[in-house]
Amino acid sequence: MEKIIVNKIKSPRLSNPVFIVGLPGIGNIGKIAVEYLIDKLKMIRMTDIVTQYLPPQVFINEEGLIHLAKNSIYYKKRINKNDLVIVTGDFQGTTQEGQYELSYLILQLAEEMKASAVYTLGGYSVGKIVEHPRVLGAVSDRKMLEVLKAAGVVFPKGEPGGGIVGSAGLVLGLATEVFEMSAACLMGETSGYFADPRGAMVLLETLSKLVSTDVDLQELEERSKQIEEITGKMQQEGMQQKPPGKDDLGYFG
Amino acid sequence: MEKIIVNKIKSPRLSNPVFIVGLPGIGNIGKIAVEYLIDKLKMIRMTDIVTQYLPPQVFINEEGLIHLAKNSIYYKKRINKNDLVIVTGDFQGTTQEGQYELSYLILQLAEEMKASAVYTLGGYSVGKIVEHPRVLGAVSDRKMLEVLKAAGVVFPKGEPGGGIVGSAGLVLGLATEVFEMSAACLMGETSGYFADPRGAMVLLETLSKLVSTDVDLQELEERSKQIEEITGKMQQEGMQQKPPGKDDLGYFG
Amino acid sequence: MEKIIVNKIKSPRLSNPVFIVGLPGIGNIGKIAVEYLIDKLKMIRMTDIVTQYLPPQVFINEEGLIHLAKNSIYYKKRINKNDLVIVTGDFQGTTQEGQYELSYLILQLAEEMKASAVYTLGGYSVGKIVEHPRVLGAVSDRKMLEVLKAAGVVFPKGEPGGGIVGSAGLVLGLATEVFEMSAACLMGETSGYFADPRGAMVLLETLSKLVSTDVDLQELEERSKQIEEITGKMQQEGMQQKPPGKDDLGYFG
Amino acid sequence: MEKIIVNKIKSPRLSNPVFIVGLPGIGNIGKIAVEYLIDKLKMIRMTDIVTQYLPPQVFINEEGLIHLAKNSIYYKKRINKNDLVIVTGDFQGTTQEGQYELSYLILQLAEEMKASAVYTLGGYSVGKIVEHPRVLGAVSDRKMLEVLKAAGVVFPKGEPGGGIVGSAGLVLGLATEVFEMSAACLMGETSGYFADPRGAMVLLETLSKLVSTDVDLQELEERSKQIEEITGKMQQEGMQQKPPGKDDLGYFG
Repeated sequence: MEKIIVNKIKSPRLSNPVFIVGLPGIGNIGKIAVEYLIDKLKMIRMTDIVTQYLPPQVFINEEGLIHLAKNSIYYKKRINKNDLVIVTGDFQGTTQEGQYELSYLILQLAEEMKASAVYTLGGYSVGKIVEHPRVLGAVSDRKMLEVLKAAGVVFPKGEPGGGIVGSAGLVLGLATEVFEMSAACLMGETSGYFADPRGAMVLLETLSKLVSTDVDLQELEERSKQIEEITGKMQQEGMQQKPPGKDDLGYFG
Repeated sequence: MEKIIVNKIKSPRLSNPVFIVGLPGIGNIGKIAVEYLIDKLKMIRMTDIVTQYLPPQVFINEEGLIHLAKNSIYYKKRINKNDLVIVTGDFQGTTQEGQYELSYLILQLAEEMKASAVYTLGGYSVGKIVEHPRVLGAVSDRKMLEVLKAAGVVFPKGEPGGGIVGSAGLVLGLATEVFEMSAACLMGETSGYFADPRGAMVLLETLSKLVSTDVDLQELEERSKQIEEITGKMQQEGMQQKPPGKDDLGYFG
Repeated sequence: MEKIIVNKIKSPRLSNPVFIVGLPGIGNIGKIAVEYLIDKLKMIRMTDIVTQYLPPQVFINEEGLIHLAKNSIYYKKRINKNDLVIVTGDFQGTTQEGQYELSYLILQLAEEMKASAVYTLGGYSVGKIVEHPRVLGAVSDRKMLEVLKAAGVVFPKGEPGGGIVGSAGLVLGLATEVFEMSAACLMGETSGYFADPRGAMVLLETLSKLVSTDVDLQELEERSKQIEEITGKMQQEGMQQKPPGKDDLGYFG
Repeated sequence: MEKIIVNKIKSPRLSNPVFIVGLPGIGNIGKIAVEYLIDKLKMIRMTDIVTQYLPPQVFINEEGLIHLAKNSIYYKKRINKNDLVIVTGDFQGTTQEGQYELSYLILQLAEEMKASAVYTLGGYSVGKIVEHPRVLGAVSDRKMLEVLKAAGVVFPKGEPGGGIVGSAGLVLGLATEVFEMSAACLMGETSGYFADPRGAMVLLETLSKLVSTDVDLQELEERSKQIEEITGKMQQEGMQQKPPGKDDLGYFG
């Protein structure tokens, strides 16, 4: 079989779309953020990616129907603004080769569509619950640096110390070194202990400025409060927080 | 060498056969079930699959003759009914790539033979001994859903929680997403603690309805009782049951 | 680079040679046996195999000169007897793919040279020190079975229980299932606790009958006695024997 | 994507350059040594190597700009001396295949440029702090042996016992067995407990003789003293030294 099978469901004509990549990772905030956007903007699924680089696993819906583990691409046509394209999915590539191949494929698709910019979303694990999470950035070039700073993204020296591992970093890295595209990674601060809607929310606040969307974040605010109530109780009850399990959040950032 | 070597032993003309896949897995019940069927229906071996995706291992028979670890395909021609094809073997593919390549190959063969449907058999580990195991299902489409429900297969919401991992899930997933074939996975409940003929039996009871076979299950019933006697004693003696070791039952479900 | 690089050093014309494969494994006895044979028969190196399937490692000789980890092939022309070819090396392939590719390559070379038979040598770990180790066998076909029985090889039912893992098994398995060559595996009993010249000796005693060599085994007898003296003392001193570490003997049998 | 992408930044005409390879490894001394040389000789970056064989990781500089994990090649044209080429990078290949492919590529480039010799730099972990580290050698041929001995490199019998693992060994091994190039590995003694400028310094002292450079080592001397002050205090305070973590220094030697 082909190592990657690209199933085109729709082939819309898009005008210099902005590409946004949000896959499972630290605090799962990249994925939560883009799924919220897909839902609120009623984005349309255009492509499925079935591949050996994802686990041999199917998921079962409430009726008993399955879908195979995959990545998918959604789009939204907009008037007088760049169109939007979002890449998300069940998993990141599970091997180094898979990480590179899938990130490269995403950028090939972005190049074909003459994408105007690529944003990747990820979490920055700070190991404790943060009340007012910042959004940190990393960029391909100085022009993008200024764009992000104008949107309130911060660039503290030496953070994140180990760089960025996984697709959020690699898509940015390949965009910079191989595709020579303008790209940035937005990292929301998160405890990293659980799926974190608060971190997703601050990502979306920043992203909204960057790609000119106007999405009501109230539902995400409510989900954040629910989580915070639970974790607040846990803290009062003196329960010790454990570092996140690999199973919860995926290995890659 | 080729990564997969397909040795055709016989090339029968089959009429829209039903494909049944039962490989080693949880409780080993898929494999026990299809091996019982192969034996009782005197099915004929038509294809051997030798491949790098299986362990570098030979098995020795009582005389001292060996066979290499492989997967094999058996068939049974039937009058006024769809012919039967069964896929089984010593192991599932040991890597993610191997899982995909071997599942894809099975479906390519099914497509070539114009298979009418594909059933995969697996175990659903419930972590305790079950007196009356249910058969759970997962399907490619609504029509298949109705077929399975009519045969008594159940579809409890949210079970199995993590979806289906391994070839039982992947063959179904690729059938659905890539080959657009009608397919289903039947999962027999099993403790998952040992090779479980009771789970295999309930799978065969259900499968018999689906593919119109009439196989005497008495031997399987006897093997189940023997096992239950042993495990019953173990429980009386207060021995604690341990979760299954990876070595006993294979990693994939 | 090519995944396997075959460097031909000499290209002798060989007459239906017998192929003997002895690579590192349980008790290292296959390798000790063939290295002894290469030395005593003054066999000539004809081929080096450099490959990604072996560790990225060089060894340094007493002078400071290096050789890269590899497998090598030696030959011996004989009058009125089949010529001999021996395959040995620093390691077995370190991955499943490597195991298959290297075993397949050996059989391709055997086929090209019209080998009359293939013998693989390995150890059978019995977990305790054996005074009079047996040589167990496993074969491709009934004719080979009779040949081995005539040479004193035993075929106890159900031994080795798990079959044969690694190149000693795989070369036999691929010879049987893919190349349709006459092949056998000879397994010398060994504790598996250390490099075991006694096990190598009994392998050579049996092999000498099978391939009509007449090699003085005295040096091997002396090395065995030295080892047995040491291990005898260890037992008297009540030292507990530990199972062999992966590092000592290689992973595969 | 291509498994290895070679980005040529400059294509200078070089005259029989000496190739020096210093990648992360034991005590990190190979990398420290060549980075010092690149800096002091103001060497020019000519090639970037982006590849699936390195981790999916980007690094962020103080401004917020990223670079993808990669290997790079630098050169220095010299008058009346062989030109210099240095290979270094963020990581060694992370898999066996990656180790071979990247080492092979380096030698292909060396061959294209008609390199006069190849030196690889690595550490020899002695497990304790060494006041006057020696430089050990391993070579492709006797002529190179004499050259190294003349430069004070030592060749103690049986050291390093397990040979050389990783790119420092493999580049030498492939140069010897496949490319038939004159090559050597220089190993500086190091505790292996931390990034060790003292070990890098003795490597550079030796290398300077071999490739006729004249680099002021004072900064490296100062860094060594700082480290030694810290580790000296640690010893006085009776702190136990731990073996190096995989994360600090990379897996391969």
